Amino acid sequence: METMDDFFEHMIQDIYSAEKQALESMPQLVKRVQSDQLRQALQVHQRESESQVTRLEQIAKQLGIDPDGEICMAMQGLIEEAQDLLDQLEDGPLADAAIIGAAQKMEHYEIASYGTARTLALQTGQEKVADLLETTLKEEKAADEKLTFIATHSVNQKAAQE
Amino acid sequence: METMDDFFEHMIQDIYSAEKQALESMPQLVKRVQSDQLRQALQVHQRESESQVTRLEQIAKQLGIDPDGEICMAMQGLIEEAQDLLDQLEDGPLADAAIIGAAQKMEHYEIASYGTARTLALQTGQEKVADLLETTLKEEKAADEKLTFIATHSVNQKAAQE
Repeated sequence: METMDDFFEHMIQDIYSAEKQALESMPQLVKRVQSDQLRQALQVHQRESESQVTRLEQIAKQLGIDPDGEICMAMQGLIEEAQDLLDQLEDGPLADAAIIGAAQKMEHYEIASYGTARTLALQTGQEKVADLLETTLKEEKAADEKLTFIATHSVNQKAAQE
Repeated sequence: METMDDFFEHMIQDIYSAEKQALESMPQLVKRVQSDQLRQALQVHQRESESQVTRLEQIAKQLGIDPDGEICMAMQGLIEEAQDLLDQLEDGPLADAAIIGAAQKMEHYEIASYGTARTLALQTGQEKVADLLETTLKEEKAADEKLTFIATHSVNQKAAQE
């Protein structure tokens, strides 16, 4: 890796792998959810994530690179951690609270990744790419805030009674 | 894990492991840094992280739990990913940009973790614990913003010329 272009390619491939792993793991989280509001929010975000994957493919095409090529080890760790935690919990409000926490950790990984990539794209004059990354970044932040709302207004109260 | 207290204990142990792993990995990142401004920021944050570890020990004492007991797999993945990336880069502005990206991913893991823990502490009436978590959360967010500032005002421009 010698140039900014190489580094940028690596970043796109890493977040592409992260998104695909997160998408693949989502049904396993969703099937454990008890709160309808939380299930719906995760399903909405799942559809958003599919668009985010498509956006990364558009970016890769624009840059003339292959989006495949990396395996995001951080997302692997995040998913393992979520599964390990859920293995220790029965379905119910406490598991819902744990699912929110796990999903927010994944969101934050993506927020950091897209933030770095968006900034670098902007600073290297790749405005179209920066716009696509910015769109996704906004969605990730909104998804994170929505999960905080569901936690504080519904799930946590129920979980605290357990 | 059956009660909110069990879940909270798990969360404190997870972030305690994450902080300690991050602290241990920091010197390896710092020694690769070329920018004086970045090195200084990371060293300041290293000292902050030491206080954050102490704060978690205070919380554990207050809750009557052992802060040890978990290995944070997500932080393991984040560190492996950072090392793997740096193995592919020579020291210089591009490696500095990569170190900022990696450090911000670690920050965001911690932001998500402390955010969840703080909210749950507040909602279960543990105000002193919530205050300690809030202090750390603010430090993490400030550290993240400082890294964005260094990236956009200094490191990225130099990296883009490579």
